[in-house]
Amino acid sequence: MKNPITTPWEVSGDIDYDKLIKEFGAERVKPTHINPKAHHFIKREFYFSQRDFDSWVKAAESKKKVSILTGRGSSEKMHLGHLVPFVLAKHFQDKYKCNVYLPISDDEKFYVKPNLSFEDAEKYADDNILDILALGFKPGKTFVLKDLSYPIYPSAARVAKLISYSTAKAVFGLKPETNIGWSFYPAVQTAHILLPQFIEGKHHTLVPIGIDQDPYVRLARDVAQHSTLNFIKPATIHSKFLPSLKGEAKMSSSDAEGVNVIYLSDSPTEVKNKINKYAFSGGKDTLEEHRKHGGNPEIDISFQYLKYLFEEDDKKLAKIEADYKSGKMTTGELKAYTIDKINSFLKKHQENKKKIKSQVGKFMLKF
Amino acid sequence: MKNPITTPWEVSGDIDYDKLIKEFGAERVKPTHINPKAHHFIKREFYFSQRDFDSWVKAAESKKKVSILTGRGSSEKMHLGHLVPFVLAKHFQDKYKCNVYLPISDDEKFYVKPNLSFEDAEKYADDNILDILALGFKPGKTFVLKDLSYPIYPSAARVAKLISYSTAKAVFGLKPETNIGWSFYPAVQTAHILLPQFIEGKHHTLVPIGIDQDPYVRLARDVAQHSTLNFIKPATIHSKFLPSLKGEAKMSSSDAEGVNVIYLSDSPTEVKNKINKYAFSGGKDTLEEHRKHGGNPEIDISFQYLKYLFEEDDKKLAKIEADYKSGKMTTGELKAYTIDKINSFLKKHQENKKKIKSQVGKFMLKF
Repeated sequence: MKNPITTPWEVSGDIDYDKLIKEFGAERVKPTHINPKAHHFIKREFYFSQRDFDSWVKAAESKKKVSILTGRGSSEKMHLGHLVPFVLAKHFQDKYKCNVYLPISDDEKFYVKPNLSFEDAEKYADDNILDILALGFKPGKTFVLKDLSYPIYPSAARVAKLISYSTAKAVFGLKPETNIGWSFYPAVQTAHILLPQFIEGKHHTLVPIGIDQDPYVRLARDVAQHSTLNFIKPATIHSKFLPSLKGEAKMSSSDAEGVNVIYLSDSPTEVKNKINKYAFSGGKDTLEEHRKHGGNPEIDISFQYLKYLFEEDDKKLAKIEADYKSGKMTTGELKAYTIDKINSFLKKHQENKKKIKSQVGKFMLKF
Repeated sequence: MKNPITTPWEVSGDIDYDKLIKEFGAERVKPTHINPKAHHFIKREFYFSQRDFDSWVKAAESKKKVSILTGRGSSEKMHLGHLVPFVLAKHFQDKYKCNVYLPISDDEKFYVKPNLSFEDAEKYADDNILDILALGFKPGKTFVLKDLSYPIYPSAARVAKLISYSTAKAVFGLKPETNIGWSFYPAVQTAHILLPQFIEGKHHTLVPIGIDQDPYVRLARDVAQHSTLNFIKPATIHSKFLPSLKGEAKMSSSDAEGVNVIYLSDSPTEVKNKINKYAFSGGKDTLEEHRKHGGNPEIDISFQYLKYLFEEDDKKLAKIEADYKSGKMTTGELKAYTIDKINSFLKKHQENKKKIKSQVGKFMLKF
C-alpha cells in the first residue's frame, strides 16, 4: 500500500477515507442524508463526509437565506473529476433556489506552478468558467469571480489578519522557499468560503468540496466567528476523488500524456479509445473465466464512473452491477455502455459550453 | 548612544545616516545634485542618499517619459514629518510635468496594528489623502489609490511569485506569529513601486522615500528586471527623518500625548505652545550666557524645522544660523520666528485641505 498523501496540492497513494474524516475532525454523511430522494452523489456516498450539513438543510428547508460556495483552481482544461462539486452545487441551487458563488482561483495556480504565466492562468480561468456554466447554473443567482480580476483582496485582508504564518505553515506545509503569494493564498481561499457572508451578511453557506481542500474550510470555520467578522461557520460536504482511468486515487492532469484523464473537450473517439484502452477493468482475463466467475465492479473504473457520475437510475445501476458480478455482462459491454453514457454527456456539455459563451457577462460577480 | 533601529516599522536610537547608506548599498547625494537651483531638501542634504537619481534626471531632462512614486501608510492623522516625500514629489512634478502615483497602504497598517479596525484604516486613508492633495498636486497627472479599494492585488500577485518567504523574512524580520497579510505586504509595496511601469509600461520612475522604507525599494529593484516583468529598476532618493520636538530621531505619533509632534491639523495656539514648551533648544540656560557664547543650531529643533521645511530662502537661513550662533538671536526669537513660519504654512494647508475635499474624485486612479 502506497503511503497516502492528501493535501490541497497533492493527492496520491491509497486513500483511507475514514481515516481522513477522523484526521480532519469531520463526520460521515448520516443515514438520514442517504435517502432515496437524495442526489445520487450523496446516496452512493461519493459525498461521504460533512460538517453541519443538517443545519444548512434545515435553514434551506425553512426558507431562510442559504447559499452555496465552491470553486476551482484553474491551470488546465477541465476533466470529468473537476465537475463533481459543481454538479452538486447546481443540484442544490435547483432544489432550494439559492445563490451559488463560484470563485476561480487563477492566483493560486499562478503562485503554485512555477512555469504558469499570468496570461495562461487567465486564459484557463476563462475557459474553465465556460465549462462550469455549461452545467446550467441560473443567471441572477450564480456569481462567478476570478481572483485576479474581482477585488477579492479587501476580504482576503480581513481574513489574513486572523491567520498567523505559523498556522498557515502547519496547515499547508509551507516551506521557506514558498513564495509569499502562496503563503497569502490561504487567506484568499478562506475569504472565498466566507464571501457569501461578506456580500449578503450572516447566513448559512454550504461548501461542497473535495476532501483534499478541507484545510481551507477548517480555517474558514476557525475565523468565521471572530468578532471582526461575526459570521456563521460554513457547512461542508466532502467528496471522494474520481479515480483516474488506470485506477489511481484521483483523476489528475499531471498525467502528461492525458491518457489517464477524460477531458471535457475530448471527442467521442478519444473517449472510446481511452476507456477501451486504459480504463482499469474488474473483469476476468478470458471471456470463459468471466462468464464463470464474474467481474468485480468495486475495482472497475467504468463501473465507478457510472456509479458516481453517469448512471443516475438506481435500478439500472443495480442491474449492471449484478450482471457484471455474475458474468452476464462482459467488460466490453460495460465499457461500451460507459462510453455511450460519457459521450452523450459530453456532446450536450460541449454544445452548452458553446452556447454559454455569449452569456458569461451575466454570471460575473459585479463590484 | 542608544542602539539605533531602522526598519519600515520602527525607527529609534541615534541614526548614523552614513552607516545606513553603506548597509543599504546606496550612494550619497552627489555634489552635482547639490547645486544652488536644487530643491532646498536636496541642497541641504535632507535628501542625502540615492540610487540612479542621475539616470532619472537625465531621462526627465531629455523629455522622456518619467514618473514619481511615493506613498503613505495611513493609520493616524498626519504630522509635519509625513509631508517630506510629497513635497519633493510635487516639486519634481512641477519641474518636469510628470505623472505622480500616490498609493495609500491602508492594508499595511491594518495588518501591522493589532487594534486598528478595517473601518478606521479606511477613515485615516481618506483623511490623509486630503492632506497630501492639499500640497497642490496636478489633477490629470496625479493618481491616488488605496490598497483596499483599488485592485492592486493582480500586480502584487505578479511580484509575490518572485519573492520567497525566506527572503521576506530576512529583509523585514517577519516572525512566525506575523499574520499572513503582513508577510504578503512586501509584495504590495513592491507592486506600488513598480505600478507606474505596470500601468504605463517600461520607463524611469523616481521614488522619494524615507530611508527606513528602503527595503521595499531594494526588493522592487531586485525583481524589476525579471523576465516576467521586464521593467527598469526604479531610482530612489532617500530622506533623513524629521526629528521630533524633543529631538528624537523621527517625529512619530507613537508619542501618545501628541506633545512631541506637530500635526497638520494643529491650531496656531497648539503650535505655539508645543514649540515654546517642548522644542529642544540649542540655546544657553540664561540670556546672559546665550549672548556671550551663542546657541547651537545643529541641535536646535526649531532651527532644524526651518532648515528642512520652512525657510526656503538660503540667505535668511544663513543669517538666522549666524545670529543664533553668535548669540545675537535668542531662543525665544528663534522659536517665535519658527512658530510664525509653521502657522503660516498650516493656515494655508488647512484651507487647501478643505477646498480639495470636493475634488478628490479627480485624483483617484481609475480602473
